[in-house]
Amino acid sequence: MDIGFIGLGHMGLPMLGNLLATGHTVRAFDTSSGAIAQAVERGALPSRSVAELAASADVVITMLPTPSVVRGVICGPDGVLAHARQGALVIDCSTSDPHTAAEIEMIGAASGKTVVDAPVSGGVPGAKAATLTFMVGGSDLGFESARPILSVMGKNIVHCGPAGSGQAAKLCNNLLLGVSTIAVSESMCLGVSLGLAPDVLAQIINTSSGRCWVSEVYNPYPGVVADAPASNGFSGGFACDLMIKDLSLALDSAHNSRQPLPMTALSKQFFQVLSHQGGGSKDISAVVGLFKK
Amino acid sequence: MDIGFIGLGHMGLPMLGNLLATGHTVRAFDTSSGAIAQAVERGALPSRSVAELAASADVVITMLPTPSVVRGVICGPDGVLAHARQGALVIDCSTSDPHTAAEIEMIGAASGKTVVDAPVSGGVPGAKAATLTFMVGGSDLGFESARPILSVMGKNIVHCGPAGSGQAAKLCNNLLLGVSTIAVSESMCLGVSLGLAPDVLAQIINTSSGRCWVSEVYNPYPGVVADAPASNGFSGGFACDLMIKDLSLALDSAHNSRQPLPMTALSKQFFQVLSHQGGGSKDISAVVGLFKK
Amino acid sequence: MDIGFIGLGHMGLPMLGNLLATGHTVRAFDTSSGAIAQAVERGALPSRSVAELAASADVVITMLPTPSVVRGVICGPDGVLAHARQGALVIDCSTSDPHTAAEIEMIGAASGKTVVDAPVSGGVPGAKAATLTFMVGGSDLGFESARPILSVMGKNIVHCGPAGSGQAAKLCNNLLLGVSTIAVSESMCLGVSLGLAPDVLAQIINTSSGRCWVSEVYNPYPGVVADAPASNGFSGGFACDLMIKDLSLALDSAHNSRQPLPMTALSKQFFQVLSHQGGGSKDISAVVGLFKK
Amino acid sequence: MDIGFIGLGHMGLPMLGNLLATGHTVRAFDTSSGAIAQAVERGALPSRSVAELAASADVVITMLPTPSVVRGVICGPDGVLAHARQGALVIDCSTSDPHTAAEIEMIGAASGKTVVDAPVSGGVPGAKAATLTFMVGGSDLGFESARPILSVMGKNIVHCGPAGSGQAAKLCNNLLLGVSTIAVSESMCLGVSLGLAPDVLAQIINTSSGRCWVSEVYNPYPGVVADAPASNGFSGGFACDLMIKDLSLALDSAHNSRQPLPMTALSKQFFQVLSHQGGGSKDISAVVGLFKK
Repeated sequence: MDIGFIGLGHMGLPMLGNLLATGHTVRAFDTSSGAIAQAVERGALPSRSVAELAASADVVITMLPTPSVVRGVICGPDGVLAHARQGALVIDCSTSDPHTAAEIEMIGAASGKTVVDAPVSGGVPGAKAATLTFMVGGSDLGFESARPILSVMGKNIVHCGPAGSGQAAKLCNNLLLGVSTIAVSESMCLGVSLGLAPDVLAQIINTSSGRCWVSEVYNPYPGVVADAPASNGFSGGFACDLMIKDLSLALDSAHNSRQPLPMTALSKQFFQVLSHQGGGSKDISAVVGLFKK
Repeated sequence: MDIGFIGLGHMGLPMLGNLLATGHTVRAFDTSSGAIAQAVERGALPSRSVAELAASADVVITMLPTPSVVRGVICGPDGVLAHARQGALVIDCSTSDPHTAAEIEMIGAASGKTVVDAPVSGGVPGAKAATLTFMVGGSDLGFESARPILSVMGKNIVHCGPAGSGQAAKLCNNLLLGVSTIAVSESMCLGVSLGLAPDVLAQIINTSSGRCWVSEVYNPYPGVVADAPASNGFSGGFACDLMIKDLSLALDSAHNSRQPLPMTALSKQFFQVLSHQGGGSKDISAVVGLFKK
Repeated sequence: MDIGFIGLGHMGLPMLGNLLATGHTVRAFDTSSGAIAQAVERGALPSRSVAELAASADVVITMLPTPSVVRGVICGPDGVLAHARQGALVIDCSTSDPHTAAEIEMIGAASGKTVVDAPVSGGVPGAKAATLTFMVGGSDLGFESARPILSVMGKNIVHCGPAGSGQAAKLCNNLLLGVSTIAVSESMCLGVSLGLAPDVLAQIINTSSGRCWVSEVYNPYPGVVADAPASNGFSGGFACDLMIKDLSLALDSAHNSRQPLPMTALSKQFFQVLSHQGGGSKDISAVVGLFKK
Repeated sequence: MDIGFIGLGHMGLPMLGNLLATGHTVRAFDTSSGAIAQAVERGALPSRSVAELAASADVVITMLPTPSVVRGVICGPDGVLAHARQGALVIDCSTSDPHTAAEIEMIGAASGKTVVDAPVSGGVPGAKAATLTFMVGGSDLGFESARPILSVMGKNIVHCGPAGSGQAAKLCNNLLLGVSTIAVSESMCLGVSLGLAPDVLAQIINTSSGRCWVSEVYNPYPGVVADAPASNGFSGGFACDLMIKDLSLALDSAHNSRQPLPMTALSKQFFQVLSHQGGGSKDISAVVGLFKK
């Protein structure tokens, strides 16, 4: 199969690497020629444009930063849908929003292409280790076509429902991640201010009703989890500004149905305080600094 | 060993039952004579007062509703410390606050009694099944003396630090429980409003970075976890008004060190809305009703 | 002078009435033919399209519901700028956002038209009584050209700065209105729950440091201000859903500069709870129902 | 009339000065002998204890920092009620809480003394200029007896209802002050980040529906109001830690009736962030620093 991959950032490059490792032909495009060069080093074929890549691929995978970039790259006049073959499959792994994803799928269907949204969970480590979770929205056929390809890059491929459902699930998960990061920060800082040792407190929480992925794997209190960003200067991991983006998409999605999301809204504000103070590119766990002496 | 047990409510009675099952002599007291009668039915000896009970016990266990009741029962002129034997051990399993617990321990030490605070996690099911977690604050000696007795009623006995540390750990855990309950409610309701099936969404969250004890075991969205209170009319479980109490204790503890706890503070307000609307005795997961169509 | 007026709703019609009362020729357009008929009854000339209206007017005034409608009506291929005369003045009285307003002004300038943004404060009563406040963004020349016309419809015409500044000022004011409405609700409900008479409490607040426009003029507690919406079944006034729109625009404007607005964000959530429960078209003061027994 | 005054801080001293200015005999007591010396300089007679002062006074005025100090000084064994004459009038000008005030009044009545709670609004400037607002709780007789004395120290003397009502009104007012301070901070900082001049924005708000005492008199944005603390290094004024105390009393009062106060709760958290960062003794308007670039 001939696969095209657009968007060669921290996530895209290792995902493409896993596709190459299984013997697929992979064409690569990015607006950065340096990123294309890195993909070629790994064994990919370079493309000179989205259009050129789309014209020669059976499957096009996109991994892009925002809904408006996604829309431009996939639906624009020089975009994927305008140049892909009849019957091509487009797998959008970007985090965008349910509405955009549903619209793109309809536009694709109208011109004979199958589109699924398949945002990921697991971060750069998951992309490298091919252990990502893919939350897939689209038709049954779209899901079944995408599954074998996604299985090369991840280990948990879930069909969430029709087009847009993958994005919906991603936003629902990530708002919990955002709220938990701040809540665990509050809990740890309170405990320490009351005289508890951080590792003892974390151990108790992790065997009690307060436990969560953040307290166990990604504890924002420095020194509690050795390989978490909090123990490594808040570098790497999930950038604060990306979390602000995801929380904003969740809040915008909730807006139409007037769905109240008060904890989500307040969380976004604290990440915005962090970003406002210059921490936008730090890991989300740096928010603990607002609560820690 | 001769054990006295004060406070025979939903938690105290089954805890006392487990002590009796291992052959200990247990004396029981409560302000409700009906509760004493229930304890006697299980094999306990009735006491006519706190003073009488304290005078004849090697170990006194208390399970009481508020810090001020704890203080009265343990430190009052007719209380435990005034009437217990030299060398007696007092194990306070109530949820109170770190400051109260530390003060009581000092008063006890001054009159030759050992006091530990040992609040629990695990609820009524854990009390019945003897699987409670005890978070213990006190001296090494106090902890070692209390451990064999607590092991009869629970399976996870953690020494958190000096007097008050058990209460501190309990509050830090429970604020996470409170915040998570609302955050999972927001996430589930947003997902459903965007067209996701609740069980599919829960499955995705539970294998992703948003997972937590609440999403897995105690999901507030009706029908997702069969034996959770949310699937049983929000009855049983952890009463909203008790959560308000715990969050208030956490916020008060934070007050002295000026520790900010914004998510905790906002969570308390939503449980207060629920209670204000008449839901104070419902399970905490009933808060989902504020976000669900 | 020949004036065109587009957008004949609750605000637009009485504003147009005041222009007619001073003898101006006013052409009217709306997507509702009924609204045009009402304008004609008052003495306006009907237009069949935006293009026709724009072609024959020296000044075009727009009063439209959302930024995207504003953009379409003013900048679209059949819109005001495409058909207006060289040198025409466009006064956009809609509430949109600073970014949209600045962009439209630039597009206008490029084709020889002057555009100012001039959102209003004062509501339907102010529109009828010609006592509106206009917050004007645009060049000095634009402001001076618009002032005499705006003076016919309002009494307080403020030049806030360059294009977009009127919208910025409007959003900054309205977020305060939103927060105050909820804060006064909390204060009044707490006072009443503590045994205070609502009118006595309002009197004290209004002579103390808690006083605000909402407590004095628009008190959300029923019965305190006789002609406020709260004393008239929460009808009339400023619809909850419009407040949600304004708060959303403020939050979106803050997003780019990472400006934290926590109280604003939380306020929006409570109006969203009200709307979610079916109160989207009620006056904003109906939010008091969430706090009142 | 022989007046005793207990509590000679920033507020108490100038209030006592105004009483002396009208020719009353005033006895003064404070735990600081330096404060007593300052009162004597102004013409007061020194007392060696609360008991001595109470024994010789017709009227005792207290201005103390916390509810527990109030309770000790008025109700303790060496306190005012134990030593005052039958028929004496006690005016407590401290900010405490409605419950404490009502209890003290009952204890006083049982021993033949009249107690009113009369907390103040207006700050140190109002205390110096004798322009304070007194919010009085107590019987009609108590109010009528206190009024002439309070009129010497203030210009607005309001009977709010039975004992405790003065405290209730004070807390309801001050929570609005706290919320407004943060809300105006958000509004001003957003406006400035969008390019508005702070004084232009303040002028618009102050003639629109967002206006409040804070925006007009106490604007937290530096430079907008020349004699506000914000324009003078956030010194003087109303200390952040005192606002935290008042908001805590309001939240505690609300707790019993399960009255939700979400904006109040969130405001307290931001003042707590400020205090946590070392700003507890700064004026409340220093909270603007959390939102300002």
